[in-house]
Amino acid sequence: MRSRHYLLATLKETPADAEVISHQLMLRAGLIRKVAAGLYTWTPTGIRVLRKVEAVVREEMVRAGALEVLMPMVQPADLWQESGRWEDYGPELLRLHDRNQRDFVLGPTHEEVIAELARKEISSYKQLPLNLFQIQTKFRDEIRPRFGVMRAREFLMKDAYSFHLDAECLQQTYDTMYAAYCRIFERLGLDYRPVIADTGSIGGSVSHEFHVLADSGEDDIAFSDSSDYAANVELAVALAPTTERPAPTQAATSITATSLESACEQVGLSLQQAVRTYLVKAAEDQAQPWIAVVVRGDHQLNEIKLGKLPTVASPVEFATAAQIKELCGCDAEAVGPYQLQFPVIVDYSAAVLADFVAAANANGAFMTCLNWERDITIAAQADIRNVVAGDPSPCGKGQLEIKRGIEVGHIFQLGTKYSDAMKVGVLTESGKHENLTMGCYGIGVSRIVAAAIEQNHDQYGIKWPTALAPFEAIIIPMNMHKSVRVQATAEQLYAELCELGVDVLFDDRKERPGAMFADAELIGVPHQIIIGERNLDSDSVEYKNRRTGEKELVKITDLAQFIQQRRAS
Amino acid sequence: MRSRHYLLATLKETPADAEVISHQLMLRAGLIRKVAAGLYTWTPTGIRVLRKVEAVVREEMVRAGALEVLMPMVQPADLWQESGRWEDYGPELLRLHDRNQRDFVLGPTHEEVIAELARKEISSYKQLPLNLFQIQTKFRDEIRPRFGVMRAREFLMKDAYSFHLDAECLQQTYDTMYAAYCRIFERLGLDYRPVIADTGSIGGSVSHEFHVLADSGEDDIAFSDSSDYAANVELAVALAPTTERPAPTQAATSITATSLESACEQVGLSLQQAVRTYLVKAAEDQAQPWIAVVVRGDHQLNEIKLGKLPTVASPVEFATAAQIKELCGCDAEAVGPYQLQFPVIVDYSAAVLADFVAAANANGAFMTCLNWERDITIAAQADIRNVVAGDPSPCGKGQLEIKRGIEVGHIFQLGTKYSDAMKVGVLTESGKHENLTMGCYGIGVSRIVAAAIEQNHDQYGIKWPTALAPFEAIIIPMNMHKSVRVQATAEQLYAELCELGVDVLFDDRKERPGAMFADAELIGVPHQIIIGERNLDSDSVEYKNRRTGEKELVKITDLAQFIQQRRAS
Repeated sequence: MRSRHYLLATLKETPADAEVISHQLMLRAGLIRKVAAGLYTWTPTGIRVLRKVEAVVREEMVRAGALEVLMPMVQPADLWQESGRWEDYGPELLRLHDRNQRDFVLGPTHEEVIAELARKEISSYKQLPLNLFQIQTKFRDEIRPRFGVMRAREFLMKDAYSFHLDAECLQQTYDTMYAAYCRIFERLGLDYRPVIADTGSIGGSVSHEFHVLADSGEDDIAFSDSSDYAANVELAVALAPTTERPAPTQAATSITATSLESACEQVGLSLQQAVRTYLVKAAEDQAQPWIAVVVRGDHQLNEIKLGKLPTVASPVEFATAAQIKELCGCDAEAVGPYQLQFPVIVDYSAAVLADFVAAANANGAFMTCLNWERDITIAAQADIRNVVAGDPSPCGKGQLEIKRGIEVGHIFQLGTKYSDAMKVGVLTESGKHENLTMGCYGIGVSRIVAAAIEQNHDQYGIKWPTALAPFEAIIIPMNMHKSVRVQATAEQLYAELCELGVDVLFDDRKERPGAMFADAELIGVPHQIIIGERNLDSDSVEYKNRRTGEKELVKITDLAQFIQQRRAS
Repeated sequence: MRSRHYLLATLKETPADAEVISHQLMLRAGLIRKVAAGLYTWTPTGIRVLRKVEAVVREEMVRAGALEVLMPMVQPADLWQESGRWEDYGPELLRLHDRNQRDFVLGPTHEEVIAELARKEISSYKQLPLNLFQIQTKFRDEIRPRFGVMRAREFLMKDAYSFHLDAECLQQTYDTMYAAYCRIFERLGLDYRPVIADTGSIGGSVSHEFHVLADSGEDDIAFSDSSDYAANVELAVALAPTTERPAPTQAATSITATSLESACEQVGLSLQQAVRTYLVKAAEDQAQPWIAVVVRGDHQLNEIKLGKLPTVASPVEFATAAQIKELCGCDAEAVGPYQLQFPVIVDYSAAVLADFVAAANANGAFMTCLNWERDITIAAQADIRNVVAGDPSPCGKGQLEIKRGIEVGHIFQLGTKYSDAMKVGVLTESGKHENLTMGCYGIGVSRIVAAAIEQNHDQYGIKWPTALAPFEAIIIPMNMHKSVRVQATAEQLYAELCELGVDVLFDDRKERPGAMFADAELIGVPHQIIIGERNLDSDSVEYKNRRTGEKELVKITDLAQFIQQRRAS
């Protein structure tokens, strides 16, 4: 490809509204352009990367035995009414109607359409298991589209759905897909981790997320430093302390302070010796309408874990400021477990405290030297906090570390949620009708491009892993338009590399060398070939590796072979 | 691929609501399934064909120098308001709004989005010409979606848009794209014709359609029997007769009859000696509000040609039955040119008639022996009829034949319609600001699949051209589950063919041979390998070619090589 016939579309300035580095670099390197909030055009350099991701994903899906299909983006509402998601799905589901006023949605996922296909096409257990995938455009009407294609409204996704008679068969396909996902991210050259995850609103039981590790990631992931254990912090188990709760040493005392922090400071204790309290709605079958939940002062409450407790309403509903005022007569941060009329659920780590500090249900009032049982009855102990670095790993080996990740894949064992709702069943070998067990498997194809950049960049631009690079090599002839020798060498090497099938960009623009170097670094072409008068005196050109920064002189006659070896390695 | 792990989804019965053969066969062969009116899921066999079309189209676009991009399906309304199409486009344009009540459309084409990209990214004449393409999902809210994917609402299209400083440069890219389109249809193995076409509502001047020839096509195409000339009948020029109009021989006489046909019969003349008359709205600048247009009794009025006459309102607006009643006091079919108060435009072929028959502006009243000028004043003569077989070709060589075609591609020289409306311009070499000239180039990727079937099928199913076939070969082992020999041979040949990279379907279902043969014919696999006990006695299997019907016995040891040769030829 010659730059003069190409739409390079690089920018010198960082666009003002791009917050994260991948968004900035995707705009600056000419990968995408904004059409409207959360809607982007993939420009030529971007689509080259996107198609490479797509090809790897497709190959690995086929290798894993999944069959490709293509479902429509516009889906009839009646299928969503049948599954119950027409009611359950929030405003991210874009609803529309056609010229005949019939209701449709723009598909955010395709469980309903695939279930409809399966119930019509799968009639016998002999057809199982069946795993169908598509690579297709999705739409989610995000309330705050941002970070470019990282959280766009329209995006490219690979989604797969598998159908089984039993959990064992589902587990086999799930394992196959898990392995396929690992191969995909390995082939793409990304530093990733599969982590145990929550199943959220999709439903189901077992679930793993695949995260590309990057400091800018939105998710916290907990890893064992001594085993393969990894889980989203949402889900990572915080083990109960093995230490016993110490005996009380002092009488509970009331003090005044402006905050829990300053109360602790007054009495010379750390936040680890204090607790925070939240009021949440109790489950419908509970005697009391509210429950107080308590975590250690330095810990964060984990809503996902909390929502799974049988006594707590799910999804978790916190008391509003007005409700707290009415119930406790104070502000939210003044709620404490002492002399509270509601059952108190205490996180394991908070439950082993003695002589601790807490707010005292009046603005500015705190208690010190509180002790469980003596002063406050514990209704139940549970794991309701986020793990933190240094916690023992729940796998039993080592300690947890916390890293940030960008979710690029998510696999679920759905169970029979959709097949029960939509009656997707078959006749079994014994002639019985049984609803199918489903798995679903998503990869954010366009999101991978952004995640790869978050993980692979420097101050000059993108450092693509080879498998993702828009071009494998770039020829940068310095002042070609003034030098017949430079031009002839550039043309010769371009022809040689094309002949070898190298996907090479020939920068034949009439630009200053500095601008050409900057663009090459920015768009992140792995192998750079710089042709200048001086090196030509020794029949050489300069090679530069974008990722390692390695530079060396290479004889013109050896160059094509040299690049051929580098791209294979 | 083993059938048991595949979703064959073939049907024995023809679905009742499928009218055309391609729709029937796409359902029966398991290529598509209906989700809602005009919305289809492409099932595994279908997507294999679709991806093959897509790959050929992409390769040829790249070869033609076009750069791939990907624009969003959901487009902001403001771009459409700017181009004027928000008003002009009818209800086929699906309009919707997002959670913030902002207006969007589901893109039926992408002129606006690409023009927006071009005006931001093309700043200098040095970047020209630029040709951008995408392969992307489109939505058109057809009033009557039908014929399966032939006229679906959601469909896959390749659309390209080129930008130029002048008409000459546009013509060059247009010629390149014309040639690329020819290569695409040749590579796909289709019998096609490029034809001169109308530019319709897209606007512009020069335009060609690419038609796959098939008796079931919706379009009539006129060909010269002696040259390359081909044009959509909408546009094909009907040359004025070279014969002189004969002199009148008799006085005009009034008769009564129930129809023009019976009037002709009464006086012993054919419809070729009669005329039909239509009342249409005159252009705004005309003195009279209505114009009568007259064609020969056996000819069809051509609205496209009529709409291009400066005296006629465009688009053509016919008088309603009520308006005719008021204006002429009769029904529509009783309108005639004799003693009519409106200007009369006469088709060239009708204008050379003498002593002809016409309706006489009262129900049941006709005139015979009418003569132009003597009885009726001709306001203008024009070519306003469809050509018919036997007409002289407008290229000057030979006569016209009429065939039916399915439009699968359409290329346009758009001119500056969009760049004027949306101010897409550059600074020229002389420093002047100039709006760009555009071309646009569409291919119906999903429609090609249906068109190929309309052209290539028999009573048993689809006869795919090799380039389009979902599988290259199929292994049909007869009663494999009862014969170790058959099974072993099948497994061996399957392994050998896979090893050679042949895309082979191994029908390992426990089915009767008859059902397996029927499925193989139905889905149209080009090379069939039938393994049976009897032929194994001579170490042979049977080969059958789906397109030619040719059968021969092939030694097992030669089979892989035999297929390898066949697929290459």
